[in-house]
Amino acid sequence: MTPSPEDAPGAVIHFRPAEATLRLEPGESLLDGARRGAIPLASSCGGSGTCLSCLIRIVDGPAPEPSAADRRLLSAKLLADGWRRACQIWPREGCAVQVPPRSAAAQTVRALAGNDVRLVPDPTVRTWRIRLAGQPDDPASSLDDRLIAAINRHGAARCQAVDADALRAAAAFAGREPVRLLAALRRGKLVQVLPADRRALALAVDLGTTSIGAFLLDLRRGRTAPLCQAGITNPQQSLGGDIITRLNRAVHDAGQLRQLQRLAIEGINRLAATLCAQAGAAVTDICDVVVAGNTVMAHFLLALPVAGLAHAPFSPLLRGAADLEARDLGLAAAPAASVHLFPAIAGFIGGDHVAALLALETRELQGITLLLDIGTNTEISLLRREEILSVSCPSGPALEGGEITWGMQAARGAIERVTLREDGEPRLQVIDGAPPEGICGSAVLDIVAELLRAGLINHRGRLQPGPERVRDNDHTREFVLVAEAERDAPAIVFTQGDVRAVQLAKAAIRSGIDMLLQAAGLDEAQLDQVIVAGAFGSYIDLDSAIAIGMLPGLPRERFAQIGDAAGLGTRLAALSHPHRAQAARIAQRARYISMAGSAAFQRQFVSRINFRQPAAAGGGGGR
Amino acid sequence: MTPSPEDAPGAVIHFRPAEATLRLEPGESLLDGARRGAIPLASSCGGSGTCLSCLIRIVDGPAPEPSAADRRLLSAKLLADGWRRACQIWPREGCAVQVPPRSAAAQTVRALAGNDVRLVPDPTVRTWRIRLAGQPDDPASSLDDRLIAAINRHGAARCQAVDADALRAAAAFAGREPVRLLAALRRGKLVQVLPADRRALALAVDLGTTSIGAFLLDLRRGRTAPLCQAGITNPQQSLGGDIITRLNRAVHDAGQLRQLQRLAIEGINRLAATLCAQAGAAVTDICDVVVAGNTVMAHFLLALPVAGLAHAPFSPLLRGAADLEARDLGLAAAPAASVHLFPAIAGFIGGDHVAALLALETRELQGITLLLDIGTNTEISLLRREEILSVSCPSGPALEGGEITWGMQAARGAIERVTLREDGEPRLQVIDGAPPEGICGSAVLDIVAELLRAGLINHRGRLQPGPERVRDNDHTREFVLVAEAERDAPAIVFTQGDVRAVQLAKAAIRSGIDMLLQAAGLDEAQLDQVIVAGAFGSYIDLDSAIAIGMLPGLPRERFAQIGDAAGLGTRLAALSHPHRAQAARIAQRARYISMAGSAAFQRQFVSRINFRQPAAAGGGGGR
Repeated sequence: MTPSPEDAPGAVIHFRPAEATLRLEPGESLLDGARRGAIPLASSCGGSGTCLSCLIRIVDGPAPEPSAADRRLLSAKLLADGWRRACQIWPREGCAVQVPPRSAAAQTVRALAGNDVRLVPDPTVRTWRIRLAGQPDDPASSLDDRLIAAINRHGAARCQAVDADALRAAAAFAGREPVRLLAALRRGKLVQVLPADRRALALAVDLGTTSIGAFLLDLRRGRTAPLCQAGITNPQQSLGGDIITRLNRAVHDAGQLRQLQRLAIEGINRLAATLCAQAGAAVTDICDVVVAGNTVMAHFLLALPVAGLAHAPFSPLLRGAADLEARDLGLAAAPAASVHLFPAIAGFIGGDHVAALLALETRELQGITLLLDIGTNTEISLLRREEILSVSCPSGPALEGGEITWGMQAARGAIERVTLREDGEPRLQVIDGAPPEGICGSAVLDIVAELLRAGLINHRGRLQPGPERVRDNDHTREFVLVAEAERDAPAIVFTQGDVRAVQLAKAAIRSGIDMLLQAAGLDEAQLDQVIVAGAFGSYIDLDSAIAIGMLPGLPRERFAQIGDAAGLGTRLAALSHPHRAQAARIAQRARYISMAGSAAFQRQFVSRINFRQPAAAGGGGGR
Repeated sequence: MTPSPEDAPGAVIHFRPAEATLRLEPGESLLDGARRGAIPLASSCGGSGTCLSCLIRIVDGPAPEPSAADRRLLSAKLLADGWRRACQIWPREGCAVQVPPRSAAAQTVRALAGNDVRLVPDPTVRTWRIRLAGQPDDPASSLDDRLIAAINRHGAARCQAVDADALRAAAAFAGREPVRLLAALRRGKLVQVLPADRRALALAVDLGTTSIGAFLLDLRRGRTAPLCQAGITNPQQSLGGDIITRLNRAVHDAGQLRQLQRLAIEGINRLAATLCAQAGAAVTDICDVVVAGNTVMAHFLLALPVAGLAHAPFSPLLRGAADLEARDLGLAAAPAASVHLFPAIAGFIGGDHVAALLALETRELQGITLLLDIGTNTEISLLRREEILSVSCPSGPALEGGEITWGMQAARGAIERVTLREDGEPRLQVIDGAPPEGICGSAVLDIVAELLRAGLINHRGRLQPGPERVRDNDHTREFVLVAEAERDAPAIVFTQGDVRAVQLAKAAIRSGIDMLLQAAGLDEAQLDQVIVAGAFGSYIDLDSAIAIGMLPGLPRERFAQIGDAAGLGTRLAALSHPHRAQAARIAQRARYISMAGSAAFQRQFVSRINFRQPAAAGGGGGR
C-alpha cells in the first residue's frame, strides 16, 4: 500500500531529541507537522522530495511504508532500520522519530566575530544623565515639566515633549526627593527614562530568511563591538523553509501575512530577551532598534502586502527606510523606542545589502570595488567613486548547502573542508571534530573544486565513472564521501545533481559580475578589490571559488573576506545617525541593473555554466 | 428586616424602559448593578444616599424592604407604590424596575449650536490631491517612491517618508493604471491615502467627565462649523458617576486604570462611527484627532497613573500637550492619524479650559476679561493683555443639578426656568413641555434667586416657615415645586440642603473671582468683560446668577454667554496648526493661582456664603 496525504488519521508522533509530542493533522506529512510544531527539522528543498535533508529514523512504533522515491534513494537495510524522509511519510499510527543532529543543527548559527569599529557616538536616540528635582507642593508642577526642565538645564530646547509611555516609566521613579536618571531622547522627544545606573541600549537585528541575528549595543559607547550577540533560526520556518513558500502563503491570505509578521517579531523578541538577560539588562532598556533584512523580510515584518514581490516585475511596496515605534509592532523594548528599518535598493536587493554597503564606509576603498554577499540570492555591487551599480543573482541555495543532497547548516557534524588525496580518497574536516552528518556550504565549493582538479568531473561538470568512490545508483551517479558502512547510516554522497546545482549557482554569480562590468564599461582585470561579505562568504575557500570560476581569477591580494558586513552596517546605523542618513543616500544612489529576462544575462549565464574559462571571458565583458 | 449588602443573593432584575436584564452580583446594590450593566440610571451623589436622583419604582415582583433613609424621605403611599432609591436596595428576589425619564435622560446631551468661525485652513495634517502613476515594469520602482514622487511633483520635499499603514492603504488603490488619490501628510510623512473623491476628516473631541462630545470636520474646509456632531454619556460612568470615585478606583489598581482608558476610547470610537456614518464617510477617513478634557480625563485616556491627582498637591504627570498616533490608542481612525491632546494649565485646570481660552482668540477682547467655565470644578481665567491668571474653584455639582435632591440633566422633563408669582406659586418651564421630572441646573439658580427675591429665604439662606409651599419634613424644610398629588409620584421639592449646596457653589465661584482680582491688583468694577462659557453657562439666567451673588453685579452689557467655547477651541486646533501652537503658548503663559489651603481663600469664601453683598466686598478684593 502506498501512503498518501489522504490517509492521514492524526497519529501522535514523539520527536527526539527535542522530546516534543505532536498530533498530526489530516493530510499532514511528518515534515509539515514538525514545521507546524516548530520542531527543528531541516528541509532545504521545502518538502518537494528532491533532497535528503529531512532524513529521519523511526525508532519506536511502526515505520510507515516507504514511498517509491524513498525506495529508490535508500538501501533495503536503511529502510528496514526505519530511515525515511519526513516529507515522504504520512504516519497513520503513533511512533517515535529520531531527528539526526544534521536537522536539529538548524537551530544553531555560527557567530561571526564582530567587526569592532570605533566611531563618534551620535545615535538617533541620544541619552542624557539628569537630576530630576523632587515634586514641589505646587499643583501647577507636572512631571513632564520637571523632566523637560531637568534635561534642558544642560542645553536649551533639547527636549520639547515627553512621550506618554516615557512619562509612565518616569512616574515609577519620581517622588518627593530628587533622583538621578538616564533620559533617552529622539528628535526632541523624551522616549524612555531609566535609573541612572542603567545603560541605554540599542538592538541591531539582521532579519534573514533562514536565521535572525541580533546584537546588543550600548548607545553611549562609541564602538561597534556588541555587548553580546546571538542568532536563532527564523521562526517563520514553521510556515516554509524557503522564501518562495512563505511568499506564496502570504500573497493571498492576509492572515498568513500577519502570522509571518508575528513570527518575525517573536523571533526578535526572543533574541532581545536572551541578550538582555545576558547583559543584565531589561528589554525596556532598549531605546532603539535597527533592522536590516531582505525586501521580503521587511515586508513581512511590517505586514505589508507582498503580491508585488511574488511576480514580475517584483517591485516592492516599500523601498525607503521605515521609522516606527516599538509599540507599533509589539517589539520587546521601551514602548516608544524607535524602530528603524533599512532602506532597500530594489525588490531583490534589500536593506541587508545596503547595510553591507554602509559597512564599507569603515574601510579605505581604493579604486574600483566589487562587493558580493553570497546567498540564495547573491547581491553584488560595483563601486566606483560615488557610483554604485547593483545586481541580484538567483544563485539558489546550493552554495549554502541547501538543495544539496547531504547539505546542512554550518554546525556540529558538518563537513566544512574537503581535500582529495592523490589516491582519490577524501580528507574531511568536520566542525567540532564530530562524526560527519552532512556537508555545509564551504565544503560544497571544495568538493567541486577538488573533483575538478582530480579530473573526476570534466569541464562540463560530468562525474567521470571508474574510481572506487564514484558509483552509479539506479537514478544518478554520485561521489561517496562517507560510505554507509563507515557510519552505519545512509552514505554521505555528492551527486551529479549536486554538481549541477553548484554549476548553476556559480554561473549565476559570475554572470552577475559580468553584467556589472559590462554596465560599467570595465574589464574584470580593472577590479581593484573584490570584497566577499556575509556568513557564507567568510568561510569559503577563495581558491576553490576561483578554481570553479565563481569568482574572477585575479591576484589573491585583491580579495578580502570581511565577515558579517550587514551586521556591522546595522550596528553602525544603531550607533550613528549620520550613518543612518548615509544608508538612505546609498539606497538612493545605487542603480539597480535588472537581469530578469535580460537576453544578455541569459547568454552570459550559459557561457558560464561550464568549468573551463571561456576563451573570451575575461575581455568578453568589456567593450 | 433591614436590607444590607451582605444579603445579596444574585437576583435577576429587569430594567424598563431599557428592557435590559441583569443578574446582581453578591453585595451589589441595584444602582451598582445598573452601572455595571451600563443601564442609564442617574446618581448625582455617587450612591452615597444623599440625593434622590436614583429614585426608581419596582413595578413587578416583590419590592425590597425600604431602608431607614428611604422611609424618612418617601411617604408611606410612595413606598407602597414601590418607589425606592436604587442605591438603597439590594434585591434578593427578581423584579422589574421602572427607571423614570429623569434617570434615563442622562443618555441625551443637549447639543450646543456650533460657533462657526472662518479661518485659513492650515491643519497639522495637510492633504493634497495627487495623481499616482501606474506601476512600471521596473523592480527598482516601489510604491513608496511613486507616492513620494506624485506628492512632491507639486512642491519639492513635501513628503520624505511614507508610514507603513498609509502604504498598506495605498496598496489597495495602486495598480498598473494611474489613479487619483487624496494624500494626507503630517510633518513630511504620508499618513493616509484615500480615493480622490473622499474628504480627509478631523475629529474634535470634548472628553468630559459626564459626557463626551465630538465634532466631525473637513480638513480642507476653512470653517469651524462641523459636518456633524454628537454627544454621549461618558461610558466611564459605569465605573463611577463622579470623577473622585473613578480616581479612587484607578489610584491603586492599574487594571481599573486600563479599563477607564478602554471605556473612554470606546466612547470616542462610538462617536466616530456615528458621525462618520452620518457624513457618509469611513472612520479611516479621519486623519487627525484632537481631544480636550480635564486633566484627570486626559490621564485616563493615556492610562497615566493618577495617584498624583488624587491627593495634595494634586499635581499631574502630564501637563504639556501629548501627540501620538491613533494606533497607539486603538482609536477608530486611520491607524497613523495623529492624536493631539490639549495641554493643561494645572491639575485642576485642564485642556478643556485651555481650549476655551483658545476660542477667545476668535473674539475681539477689549481690556480686562474674565472667562468662566462653570461646572463641578469652575475654571476662571483673568486676561489682561498677554497675562493670564487662572483659578479652579471647587463649586461642586449643585449648579448643574447634581447633588440637588431633584436635580437632573438638562433633558426632556427637566424644569429649566422657574419664576414665583406674587402669591408664591411657582411658574415652571419644562424642557419639551413634558410633565416635570426634576430640576436642571439653570432652574436651580432661578429657584434660589426667586426664593431670595420673594423673601422665602433670608440672607443667610434659611428657608422661612409659613407659606403653603414651604413644608417641614421630619428631617428638613423644603419648598414644594410640584406636589405629590399634582403628579402621582414623589413631590418635586427644593430643600434647605439644596439651598445650602447652591450657597457653597456660588461662594466658591465668587471667591475665585475675588482671588483673581486680588492677584491682579484689580477691583471688580475694572472688569471690562465677563464671558461665561460652557454648556451650563449658556443656559443660566445671568440676572439670577448676579442676584444670588455668584457673578459680580456689573452692567449687563459687560457679560456674554458664548456657548461651547471648549468645543470651538478644540475644532480650531483640529483645523489650524498655528492655533494648536497658540494653545501650547496659552498653557505655558497662564499662571495658576492655587487656592487649596489658602487662608485668604477661606476668608473670602466664608464672606461669600451669605446672600447679601458683604459691606466691603466690591473693594475688599482690591489692594
